[in-house]
Amino acid sequence: MLNPADAAFAETLASRLPEGTLRAPDAAHLEEPRGRWQGHGGILALPRSTAEVQTIVQICAAARVGIVPWGGGTGLVGGQIMPQGPAPVILSLERMQALRGLWPDENALIVEAGMTLAGVQQAADAAGRMFPLSLASEGSARIGGCLATNAGGIGVLRHGNARDLCLGVEAVMADGSLLAGLKRLRKDNTGYDLRHLLIGSEGTLGIITAAALRMVPRPAVSVTALLVVPDPAAALRLLTLAQARLPGMISAFELIGKMGFDFLAETMPEVTCPFPTAPEWCVLLDLGLPSAFEAEAVMASLYAEADEAGLVQDGVIAASEAQRKSLWRIRETIPEANRRIGAISSHDIALPLSAVPEFIPKADAALARIGAFRVNCFGHLGDGNLHYNVFPIPGRTRRDHEAQRDAIKASVHDLVHAMGGSVSAEHGIGRLKVADLERYGDPTKLAAMRAVKAALDPMGILNPGAVLRA
Amino acid sequence: MLNPADAAFAETLASRLPEGTLRAPDAAHLEEPRGRWQGHGGILALPRSTAEVQTIVQICAAARVGIVPWGGGTGLVGGQIMPQGPAPVILSLERMQALRGLWPDENALIVEAGMTLAGVQQAADAAGRMFPLSLASEGSARIGGCLATNAGGIGVLRHGNARDLCLGVEAVMADGSLLAGLKRLRKDNTGYDLRHLLIGSEGTLGIITAAALRMVPRPAVSVTALLVVPDPAAALRLLTLAQARLPGMISAFELIGKMGFDFLAETMPEVTCPFPTAPEWCVLLDLGLPSAFEAEAVMASLYAEADEAGLVQDGVIAASEAQRKSLWRIRETIPEANRRIGAISSHDIALPLSAVPEFIPKADAALARIGAFRVNCFGHLGDGNLHYNVFPIPGRTRRDHEAQRDAIKASVHDLVHAMGGSVSAEHGIGRLKVADLERYGDPTKLAAMRAVKAALDPMGILNPGAVLRA
Repeated sequence: MLNPADAAFAETLASRLPEGTLRAPDAAHLEEPRGRWQGHGGILALPRSTAEVQTIVQICAAARVGIVPWGGGTGLVGGQIMPQGPAPVILSLERMQALRGLWPDENALIVEAGMTLAGVQQAADAAGRMFPLSLASEGSARIGGCLATNAGGIGVLRHGNARDLCLGVEAVMADGSLLAGLKRLRKDNTGYDLRHLLIGSEGTLGIITAAALRMVPRPAVSVTALLVVPDPAAALRLLTLAQARLPGMISAFELIGKMGFDFLAETMPEVTCPFPTAPEWCVLLDLGLPSAFEAEAVMASLYAEADEAGLVQDGVIAASEAQRKSLWRIRETIPEANRRIGAISSHDIALPLSAVPEFIPKADAALARIGAFRVNCFGHLGDGNLHYNVFPIPGRTRRDHEAQRDAIKASVHDLVHAMGGSVSAEHGIGRLKVADLERYGDPTKLAAMRAVKAALDPMGILNPGAVLRA
Repeated sequence: MLNPADAAFAETLASRLPEGTLRAPDAAHLEEPRGRWQGHGGILALPRSTAEVQTIVQICAAARVGIVPWGGGTGLVGGQIMPQGPAPVILSLERMQALRGLWPDENALIVEAGMTLAGVQQAADAAGRMFPLSLASEGSARIGGCLATNAGGIGVLRHGNARDLCLGVEAVMADGSLLAGLKRLRKDNTGYDLRHLLIGSEGTLGIITAAALRMVPRPAVSVTALLVVPDPAAALRLLTLAQARLPGMISAFELIGKMGFDFLAETMPEVTCPFPTAPEWCVLLDLGLPSAFEAEAVMASLYAEADEAGLVQDGVIAASEAQRKSLWRIRETIPEANRRIGAISSHDIALPLSAVPEFIPKADAALARIGAFRVNCFGHLGDGNLHYNVFPIPGRTRRDHEAQRDAIKASVHDLVHAMGGSVSAEHGIGRLKVADLERYGDPTKLAAMRAVKAALDPMGILNPGAVLRA
């Protein structure tokens, strides 16, 4: 059993740390974006260095006090919020934002965990390179949290998930020891890959304090198009065609359904649809090309070929940076429109690519057996990652459907699982999906996870109750 | 303590398996390519299915008998050879070669662990795709072993190591339980990434029986050039230039030193140098381009730009597939020439890219303090991965230098470590580098590795003595 971070413990901790390292948690550190839970915590710790993180963890370990690592607070599954149990120390790395080094010719940089994702992007940009991880909350999300949750977003198709962009990590383990793993190597087969074990473990196995990250060359030219497709199956054939013509140059391939446009019209009419009527399905396609290419011509040629094959019905190719931004704005504002409508249940799912076209109507049909809903299905189609979110019909609110939420979620997740998919594509398990992991996870995987957790954090002080039941 | 796989145990095992599953180990299963060690083993097990692998592991676990997983026997660090200790079961998956499924539009396939790497490449090729892992021993190496060792090779710069090409694994854990992880998803954040933990663990945490793998589109056109560079620093500037002009299109960037040509002239004169005199340093550059490019023109233009910048001094651009093959043959036959000369000590090292130019003269100078040697330094420069191999001068043999081998190795590895590098870039730890891992490995990493090993294989039956001391 863990002990609470009470006043006596706070005194012990304070005596070992520089003044100003501790304070009472702000409201912001006890909330999460979806407003489902309220966290609690006895102390907010704001270390300035890895050594201070080690001290905090050592003292927590000695006193058996839980630690909730806090990045930017943008997680959507409650990994940063502990609503019950003995009050933990909330450990925010927001003061650790240093750029420790940048090697443009190596396409590598080393940053501390508290730097925001946007900060990392800017550091790469200033060196004429690109850090291609990109997601809606990049202004607030911190790179430590992005790695702890193996964040995804819109750049995964081309450049991989957060883990694929990480060369090494520095981390504080549950006993306060320091894992010094900041090597910036492309090949290093010296024992078990603890970097990949820590990445995606959501702060339950160690606290990432710094990371060596990969950058990539910036594309010389980019071009964006919004393409109307007959259906998701055609969208996937378009993806195959584009990959054959332009391998490794497709920067984003996002699916947008009619409901996305309807929600925008309802809640944010200033974001307009470029077509006379909102299409049933369209794809936001982004190409990043080397200088040898004339970007608009390449996109036009791809469009012509797709048209020939019956894969597109209409389309807009951005002719200026302003047009490009306005096309992206549609995709980027859909989550905000969703928030304004108010989802009954949101599902961050992944499917084998070829199962996507079959999944959507099946999921719709299964939902219809529960009741009448609106579904906004959109997302990172190139990765097989859909946000299949369920909303009330006009005139009703999410509160009218509280009693149905579990049935809705089970209906979607059961189908995803039966089709070989994942019930958490990019958001992680946090505390929201612990039961889902138990229900759908491979039993051998769960047993191995519990054994690894017990081996590396025997007292269970690191993010108690996240990923695995405390 | 483990028990030997003796006659009584063989009987127990045989009684639970189909006839013909067990036999005495062949000589081939007890050798390793460098001839440094002779393995021993009581029984060779040749299961035909994952269920049979489970049965074998369960019985070994019950009897505390060690298991040495055996792929294609091509490993260079003795991971497949147990020279001492209680005789183990040698477990070869060579009968498990099924292609379980292939989804061209998903760029994914699922194969059993016993398929050779060349077999996987052929399966992808037959579907109009490419499996880009490529290494000298691909005709014999099996995909299970390639994943267990996180194999590298010549395609890493563009497509990553073996782990980066794996979407999921099926594996038998130390208690015989089955990890069913063959999902073919691009995003799946449901708990700890056991796939990445098993990959690179060299059979010490579980036995990979099948894998879901990524394919990539085949480049429409390819072009190869052998470019003479003033020195390794210029080679790296050439890499930066090529990456800026042709991001994501550089399929290989291999360094060849003069000693490589000298060794070829000495041992395999039929492999000729295309330049009048063997250059001090050259780079084998391979581009894989989409159909919009005229490959030779692209290479010629890159050459012109590099020439302008003083980065190249001479070069040959292959004008035919036959010329392309003959350029590649130089690179591919260097390991065989090395074998014929007979290395005193071979070093598979990685460095931060920008440290490479400084490393080479420093390592040469440190060696010169030990004695007079010939060094063949070549390899995957684009990954910072050098094979820095040390040979006797003409008239001497490796045997004359037996007593110096440890000092040579320490001299090279100490320098690599001091410069932030890795003492095993792509070959792994096996049994050859256990002491190196202890010497150079981060202590916290080693402690965590031991804890994970104890958690997942508490009796230590999986590949005893590999990676970690038994």
